[in-house]
Amino acid sequence: MKKFHPSIDRIGLSKIVEISQRARKLAPDFEARTGKPFIYFQRGELDLHMPEYVKKTLKDSLDIKARTNYPKSGGEDVLKDSIISYHNEYGTSLAKNNIVTTYGGQGGLQITLSLFRGSGALGFNPCWSPILQSIGPYTETNFNFVPLKNEEGKITFDENELEEKLKTVDIFYFNNPHNPTGKVFTREEVERIDFLCRKHDVFLLSDEPYRDIVFDGKKHFSVAELENPNAVTSYTFSKSFAATGLRVGYAVSKNPKIIEAMSRVDYTQTAGVHTPTQYAFAEALSNKEEREKWLSSCREEFQARRDIMYDTLSPILGGTPKPEGAFYFFPDLRKFFPYSTNVDAEMLEVFLNNGVAIVPGSEFGKGNEGKARFSFSGTNRELTKIGSERTVNLLCQNKTNLIK
Amino acid sequence: MKKFHPSIDRIGLSKIVEISQRARKLAPDFEARTGKPFIYFQRGELDLHMPEYVKKTLKDSLDIKARTNYPKSGGEDVLKDSIISYHNEYGTSLAKNNIVTTYGGQGGLQITLSLFRGSGALGFNPCWSPILQSIGPYTETNFNFVPLKNEEGKITFDENELEEKLKTVDIFYFNNPHNPTGKVFTREEVERIDFLCRKHDVFLLSDEPYRDIVFDGKKHFSVAELENPNAVTSYTFSKSFAATGLRVGYAVSKNPKIIEAMSRVDYTQTAGVHTPTQYAFAEALSNKEEREKWLSSCREEFQARRDIMYDTLSPILGGTPKPEGAFYFFPDLRKFFPYSTNVDAEMLEVFLNNGVAIVPGSEFGKGNEGKARFSFSGTNRELTKIGSERTVNLLCQNKTNLIK
Repeated sequence: MKKFHPSIDRIGLSKIVEISQRARKLAPDFEARTGKPFIYFQRGELDLHMPEYVKKTLKDSLDIKARTNYPKSGGEDVLKDSIISYHNEYGTSLAKNNIVTTYGGQGGLQITLSLFRGSGALGFNPCWSPILQSIGPYTETNFNFVPLKNEEGKITFDENELEEKLKTVDIFYFNNPHNPTGKVFTREEVERIDFLCRKHDVFLLSDEPYRDIVFDGKKHFSVAELENPNAVTSYTFSKSFAATGLRVGYAVSKNPKIIEAMSRVDYTQTAGVHTPTQYAFAEALSNKEEREKWLSSCREEFQARRDIMYDTLSPILGGTPKPEGAFYFFPDLRKFFPYSTNVDAEMLEVFLNNGVAIVPGSEFGKGNEGKARFSFSGTNRELTKIGSERTVNLLCQNKTNLIK
Repeated sequence: MKKFHPSIDRIGLSKIVEISQRARKLAPDFEARTGKPFIYFQRGELDLHMPEYVKKTLKDSLDIKARTNYPKSGGEDVLKDSIISYHNEYGTSLAKNNIVTTYGGQGGLQITLSLFRGSGALGFNPCWSPILQSIGPYTETNFNFVPLKNEEGKITFDENELEEKLKTVDIFYFNNPHNPTGKVFTREEVERIDFLCRKHDVFLLSDEPYRDIVFDGKKHFSVAELENPNAVTSYTFSKSFAATGLRVGYAVSKNPKIIEAMSRVDYTQTAGVHTPTQYAFAEALSNKEEREKWLSSCREEFQARRDIMYDTLSPILGGTPKPEGAFYFFPDLRKFFPYSTNVDAEMLEVFLNNGVAIVPGSEFGKGNEGKARFSFSGTNRELTKIGSERTVNLLCQNKTNLIK
C-alpha cells in the first residue's frame, strides 16, 4: 500500500474518547453494584439542549429552497451581518471581509495553521489537547510551550519567558477562556500578549470557544477587540448554544487577505458550511432578547456547578485556582498518589473504579502528570455534587490506603 | 505579514462563481429588454428541493438531544448501517470500518489526496474543475492527464496511453458519471481501469457524486463494487437528494487503514459531520419506498431535460456524445467561432449577451478551449427548451455574422 504523508501518521486520537468508552463500559456494573450514578466529568459535551428559537429557525430554513442550496463561499451574508452586529455590541467594528464561517472552532484553528503549514508555534502549557495531538501534527506545526503557573491561587505566566520564546516562533496559540484551567485572561494580560506578539512579528491565533461562559459578572476580552492585523480569532456556536453537533463557528481577522485565504481553504475542504444551520445561528445572535435570556441562564447554570465543585473539592486541595470561565477545573492531585510511579494511569484507574471519569493531566501536555481535568459541562448540579463528594472520598481514602 | 505556505497561494477560485455573478448582473437588463428569461446553464446547483421525508427526519432529529451532540468520529452508526444496507442492494458487502462520513464528495476527495500529500496523479481530461484549481493545489498533488476522445459520438480513451502514464504516477483520479461530459463508464471500462491501477500499484480514487443520476435504464457500476484494497470511492447526498447545502457525503474503502486515517483527518479538520443531518440521510437511504420514488422521479426529470437539450442542439453540432448520466452536456462549439483567437472569452461574451450562461471548456483543463459545459441541473423542462433553442439561434447567428 502507498504510504501516508508523515503528517497523517502523526495525528493521534484523543485519549478522552478512549476514557469515555471505558467509562460507558464500567458504568452499568458500577451502578448495579452501588445503586449510584456513574459520573462523567471527562467530557466537553453539554447536557443542555440547544434553544428552541434556534432550532425553529433551522427547521424553517429547510422549507426554503434557497437555504438548502450550496453555501456562499466564506459564509452566508445573513450570518455575517448578525456577527457584525453582535461584535458591534462589544465595540468591535467588523466588515464582511473580516469574517469567515468554519466548521466549529476547530475548523478555524486547523485552517489558520494550514495557511502557515510547517511553522514554529508557541502556546501555554497546559494546552487544549487536539492542538497537541491532531491539529498541530496535521498542519506540521512545531509547538513549544510557556508554562502557566499557580501563584497563590492565581494562574500566571512569566512574561520574560514568554517574550524570549516568542522570538523563536512564527505563531502564538492563545486559548481564552482557557481549557483546561478555566482561567479567563484579563484585558491587561490579553493586551500584553498582543503587544509582545506585535513586537516580535508573531502571528496571534486566539481560540475563544468559551467567550460567552464567564463567571462572577466578569467580562471576556477578545483578541478581536484589538486592531491587530496579524491575528485570527476563532469562535464557535457549539458551546454558547449547546449545539456541539451542528459544527458551526467563525473566524475573525482585521486582515481581509487572511480571511480570503481561509475562505479558499474552507471551500477546498468542505465547499463551505451547512447552509440552513448558518441561518439558524444568524437568528441565534440577532434575536437579542432570546439570546441574552439563553446565555445568562447558561452562565448561571455553569457558575452554580462551578461553585458546587469548587466548594466541595477546594478544602482538600489547597490553593487550586477557582475557574473563572468555561466549564473545567484542573487541580493538582499528585499529593494523593505519593508513591505512584505512573500517576496518571493509576489516578485514572482509581477514579474509574470509583465511578468517576476524569481526564489525566498528561493529556494536556508534558509536566501536567498528576493533575486532572474535571468538566462540569455535562453534569447537572445534583450530579456535580455527587461526583465532587465522591472525588473527595476516593482521594482521601486512596491517600489513607497508600500511607497505611 | 507572515507568508502563506505555497500550497495556499496556488488555490484558485472557480470561474463558475464569477460567471454566475456576471449572469445575475446581466439578467435584469436582458429580461427587461427581451421579455424573456435569462437561462442559467452554468451551475451544478439543482432547482429541485430536497424530499419531505428527509427534511422531516432532520427536523425531528433537532428535538432529540443525543442527535445534536458531537458526531461520532468517522460517522454515526445509524448512517453507516444505512449505507451498508444500501450497498448490499448492489451486491457490495461493507462493514462500518469501510466507511467514513465526509462533508460532501469534496471532503472525501480532499481528505484522500491529503493522506498522500505531494503525490503525482493522473486523471482524464476534461476534468472536474476543483480538482485542477483547489483540491489538487491544496494537497500539493501534481496532476497529469489522459484525454477523453470523441469517437463517432462515443467518448473513449486510449488504453495504451493510460497504461503508459499510470506507470509514472501514484494516484488515478476517476470521475464517473463524468463531469463535464455526462459519460457513464461501462462496467468493462471500470474493470479495465481498476486492473491497470492494480497492475501498476496506483491508488484509485473514484469520485461518484452522480451515481444515482444515470439515464436510459442503464446501471452505474461503482469502483466500490470491486474488491480493490488500494482504492477509495467518494459519494455525496448533495445531488441524489437535492441537498447541496447540507454538505454530507461518505467515502468507502475496502482497506480499513485508509478509512481510519481519513477519520482522523476528518476529525482534525471539522470534528466530524453535522450530527442531525447524518440521521436525515440515514433515513434517506433506509426508507426504500420513499427513496426509490424520489430517485426515479429525479432520473426521469433529468433524462427529460437531457432529451430536450440533446434533441435541440445535436442537429447543429454533429456527433457530440449524448450524456448518459449526471446533468451536463459538453459539446465542441469551436466551429461557430472560426476566426476567434480567444475562443472561450469570446464564446462566454456571446452567450451572456444573449441571455445564456455556460462554462467555457478551458475551465475543465487545457485543450478544451472552444467546448462549453451546459448544465441542466437547475433549469426545468421549459427553461431547458428555451435555453437550448436560444443557443441554437445564437450560435448559428454568430457563425453567419462572422462568416459575412
